[in-house]
Amino acid sequence: MSIIERVNSSEDIKKLSREELETLCAELRRYEVDCISRTGGHLASNLGTVELTVALHRVYDTTKDRLIFDVGHQCYTHKIITGRRDSFPTLRQHGGISGFPKPNEAPDDAFIAGHASASISAAVGMAKARTLQHADYDVVALIGDGALTGGLSYEGLCNAASSGEPLVIILNDNNMSISENVGGTARLLQSLRIKPGYINFKKWFRSASARTRWAYDIAHNSKEWLKSRVLPSNVFSDMGLYYLGPVDGHDLEQLENAIRLAKDLQKPVLLHVLTKKGKGCPYAEAHPDKYHGVGTFNPNTGELSPVSVTFSDKMGEYLCQYAERDPRIVAITAAMAGGTGTECFQNKYPDRFFDVGIAEGHAVTMAAAMAKQGLVPVFAVYSSFLQRGIDMLIHDLALQKLHAVLCVDRAGLVGSDGETHQGLFDICYLGMVPGMTVLCPANYAELREMLGHALHNVSGPAAVRYPRGGEGRYSDCAVSAESVVREGTDITVVCCGTMVNEALDAADSLSVLGVSTEIVKLGIVFPNDYTGVLSSLRKTGRLLMAEEVCAAGCVGERILSACAEKGLSLHGAKLLNLGDGVVPHGTVAELRRDYGIDARAITRTALALCGRETVDE
Amino acid sequence: MSIIERVNSSEDIKKLSREELETLCAELRRYEVDCISRTGGHLASNLGTVELTVALHRVYDTTKDRLIFDVGHQCYTHKIITGRRDSFPTLRQHGGISGFPKPNEAPDDAFIAGHASASISAAVGMAKARTLQHADYDVVALIGDGALTGGLSYEGLCNAASSGEPLVIILNDNNMSISENVGGTARLLQSLRIKPGYINFKKWFRSASARTRWAYDIAHNSKEWLKSRVLPSNVFSDMGLYYLGPVDGHDLEQLENAIRLAKDLQKPVLLHVLTKKGKGCPYAEAHPDKYHGVGTFNPNTGELSPVSVTFSDKMGEYLCQYAERDPRIVAITAAMAGGTGTECFQNKYPDRFFDVGIAEGHAVTMAAAMAKQGLVPVFAVYSSFLQRGIDMLIHDLALQKLHAVLCVDRAGLVGSDGETHQGLFDICYLGMVPGMTVLCPANYAELREMLGHALHNVSGPAAVRYPRGGEGRYSDCAVSAESVVREGTDITVVCCGTMVNEALDAADSLSVLGVSTEIVKLGIVFPNDYTGVLSSLRKTGRLLMAEEVCAAGCVGERILSACAEKGLSLHGAKLLNLGDGVVPHGTVAELRRDYGIDARAITRTALALCGRETVDE
Repeated sequence: MSIIERVNSSEDIKKLSREELETLCAELRRYEVDCISRTGGHLASNLGTVELTVALHRVYDTTKDRLIFDVGHQCYTHKIITGRRDSFPTLRQHGGISGFPKPNEAPDDAFIAGHASASISAAVGMAKARTLQHADYDVVALIGDGALTGGLSYEGLCNAASSGEPLVIILNDNNMSISENVGGTARLLQSLRIKPGYINFKKWFRSASARTRWAYDIAHNSKEWLKSRVLPSNVFSDMGLYYLGPVDGHDLEQLENAIRLAKDLQKPVLLHVLTKKGKGCPYAEAHPDKYHGVGTFNPNTGELSPVSVTFSDKMGEYLCQYAERDPRIVAITAAMAGGTGTECFQNKYPDRFFDVGIAEGHAVTMAAAMAKQGLVPVFAVYSSFLQRGIDMLIHDLALQKLHAVLCVDRAGLVGSDGETHQGLFDICYLGMVPGMTVLCPANYAELREMLGHALHNVSGPAAVRYPRGGEGRYSDCAVSAESVVREGTDITVVCCGTMVNEALDAADSLSVLGVSTEIVKLGIVFPNDYTGVLSSLRKTGRLLMAEEVCAAGCVGERILSACAEKGLSLHGAKLLNLGDGVVPHGTVAELRRDYGIDARAITRTALALCGRETVDE
Repeated sequence: MSIIERVNSSEDIKKLSREELETLCAELRRYEVDCISRTGGHLASNLGTVELTVALHRVYDTTKDRLIFDVGHQCYTHKIITGRRDSFPTLRQHGGISGFPKPNEAPDDAFIAGHASASISAAVGMAKARTLQHADYDVVALIGDGALTGGLSYEGLCNAASSGEPLVIILNDNNMSISENVGGTARLLQSLRIKPGYINFKKWFRSASARTRWAYDIAHNSKEWLKSRVLPSNVFSDMGLYYLGPVDGHDLEQLENAIRLAKDLQKPVLLHVLTKKGKGCPYAEAHPDKYHGVGTFNPNTGELSPVSVTFSDKMGEYLCQYAERDPRIVAITAAMAGGTGTECFQNKYPDRFFDVGIAEGHAVTMAAAMAKQGLVPVFAVYSSFLQRGIDMLIHDLALQKLHAVLCVDRAGLVGSDGETHQGLFDICYLGMVPGMTVLCPANYAELREMLGHALHNVSGPAAVRYPRGGEGRYSDCAVSAESVVREGTDITVVCCGTMVNEALDAADSLSVLGVSTEIVKLGIVFPNDYTGVLSSLRKTGRLLMAEEVCAAGCVGERILSACAEKGLSLHGAKLLNLGDGVVPHGTVAELRRDYGIDARAITRTALALCGRETVDE
């Protein structure tokens, strides 16, 4: 029996010998590569944190102690060794386990994760709760250097330091973005600090200082002198955190000692750990970016399965074309050049491209200021991450009526990343931004035209929103506010973006069943007085709106409200959408089916609205 | 003629002698105290930055150079000396000048301000635009130490440092919250750095280094050695900013020299300035917090005009009462203990009270984590500032269905603070947070009961939203989702919160005119299926909804949508609200009148809906 099969908890990890632990790490890596190659997922970051995760479980008991991941896609090892080994092959699959920590999956998952930079704030809250309740558990946040570029992590760090609460922040530094002074000179600290002798020395001094003020002063002054000589201060110690490290994130024994020391200090500690993304897997080590988030691949060679062109790719391509003709256009990303398709812009116009780190709020305010000075900034960002910039959209951009363009990627269902990443709220929050124009292309041709429209014809803030993935059967190109995609007499189906493909499929089915469907597609969602929709409704008397958004603030609500306000009475109306917006992982097709917004659901609902028997499927 | 009357621009400031400048500062202080005593406004922070503002205008030309304020309530001196002296007595008054920088007021106001921590991000954007466009102007951000606690400022600092752009960040440190290592040891820098000789020495080395690598190495190493010996590194220099200071913020000559040096360095510089809030006005110096934001007062004695009890006061009082009985209750503020009425909680339960700084995002995530561990956290926050925490509300709180209570203060129109502070978006954004319960008390009695309900009966996230100011004529107490406040037959007026007072006044007027008005008040805005409203509408056939919110996502839209979906056809319907949510300053009564949501507007609209002649007013 392999060692991995004997491990189902922190407790089991603690029973293993040093040698068995090394074997376990090798087995974990093999198992992860094997499974991820079939499911897709986050590869390089998990391979980089195998030893760190195992070491954490040597020191802590995650059923009781609170281990808080940041972003969370590096939680695979943790999941495997806390009872989810057998379900790991279902990772990110419909009905399977999530690719992110989920408290409802296991008590070992302390807190939700998905959006970056939140772990320290959560740790501060848990540590304070622990102390107020006189409870006995430890709190650990595990945060990557990338997530440290987000302002929320700074707010967390400041509050962690001033809290005085015993808690450990582990900085998983895989050299992605941390400034060199932390990675460089602070290296001196390591040999000094993680020696068991050092902590004993400190303890002795502390007990001595309790007896005599004089001894304390010497101790304090020595420490300060020592600090000024060999411990260059860094951001963390300046904030008041006890800085430890850096330690080798692939040396199990060193890691375990350092974590134990951090825990024993009983104060806010930052432990700096150096890891290598992709560790132990040659192709992932060589190209950590390429193997960060992957689809399926050949586990032996690393060869990735071919991927199709996406809206993101096309957006990047079109943006480059527009930028060639208009030097005012600049592009901004919040650490997502690859994901948003703006890498080509970065390569072609490096001076006009700005990667601000995981700092969506800053990106929006900076874009507003650039717009104020005459540039045309384009911020390409995922729908769910732009939630971090809503205040800045209102306050810095919209109140000044400035013209910047948001390319809102991953709008709608995102598939296997699940609930933290679904882009279901943007129609609501963009809809409340004063003067915001929201464009919804349904295919690449419309993306190109609408991006051009947003760049050159719109005044004030504009957003072009498009989904993860590619285009479908719809092949026209309409940049108008409303367009009748198909004419019909019995019912009006209203949709925007790629949902038009579901509507077209439904209309085909309905046609066979004798129901004549009119499809109205909204190209410009806001501002729009929906006169085309209302005029169609006057003809058909029935409305079915199918949207890939949450119910609150959905477009259907606006249309129905307009009907009521205008005294247009309908024979039937139904809004299909994603309810409260909490939707787990699965493929987009599976989720559209589960939540009843796909062609079948449209067909079924339309039949019911038309007073027809629902066909048995 | 006094000097202040001769000054209308940066240019005029530059013409003054050293002696005239000192006189000008004294005149400015007198004028500000005099005017603010009659209009109310921000006193202490403006008195603290008189010399700093004058010095900035000595060095820069704000019609061309971009001076970006942070928060912005310290812009009074700037406004007075850039052509708005005569309109200054209209400060914060209906139709008068704003208490915050407004680009549409004067070209000297470079960027909007109101929400904290945005100035550095804006400066980075403007500096990058300037460089890309080969334009010739300087960019300066003026940020207080309080605003530096917000994560957005950290994102801005990181990006400013890495940008390499010539820009100057002036840290106006009035000792409110900055860590001691910055204020302390770094003081050594001042005498060294602001000497004219120092910059010349650096220039010589730089030109030398162009000729020989050897000279450069010596220069660099000397600098590093010097730095390690006498310049303790701090957060700013660690980030890569060129740190200057601290300088005395009330010494005009020193300030001017330091600012000129910062400008000449042509790199990202942080200039640290020490100021005293309330400077030159004995009562304001002695109690800077009390005289931060004030109503009218006696300019000689500082005696403040009496103020009435507010919803904020009562919330704090009730929260203390609930906390006495329930030890799980803790309170959180984002640097607004006074404004949110939680100071009494702070005094009574210091261990259970957490001021996190201007860090709304952190506050929400921390609250979620506390809730996860069994506490009942209450975050008291202004509606417009909570916009910074929307992502955390969805991601950290709601997806985990955690129970925390938001006390959303300043919901609706806030009056004289104007467009950046109006709380007009929360109904929309709270409405999209999954599982959020939103309660809307209409008077203190309801506030008390609804707060109790939110604390003890609601599961999941809950918000109690209430306006700035106090209660009105409505005196019942209903914690139900819907309550019929007055019965009638001709029209249904739906409202929530203190808007019920306008509805009652309107109903009285309408009654005299022979229109029978039914008033339905929504106590629980979400979740609510509005069955009571619908049942009233079946009787009256007419809906008038009057809301102090933006149109997008307003409750009226939900009600109309429910009508249409349920096939309930109305004879007439009208939603009164604040449109796109951009509303300037003025009293709440003036703004309700201007935007047509007051009793008169309700009366007028109701008459029109009932097909009656509108009475001449």
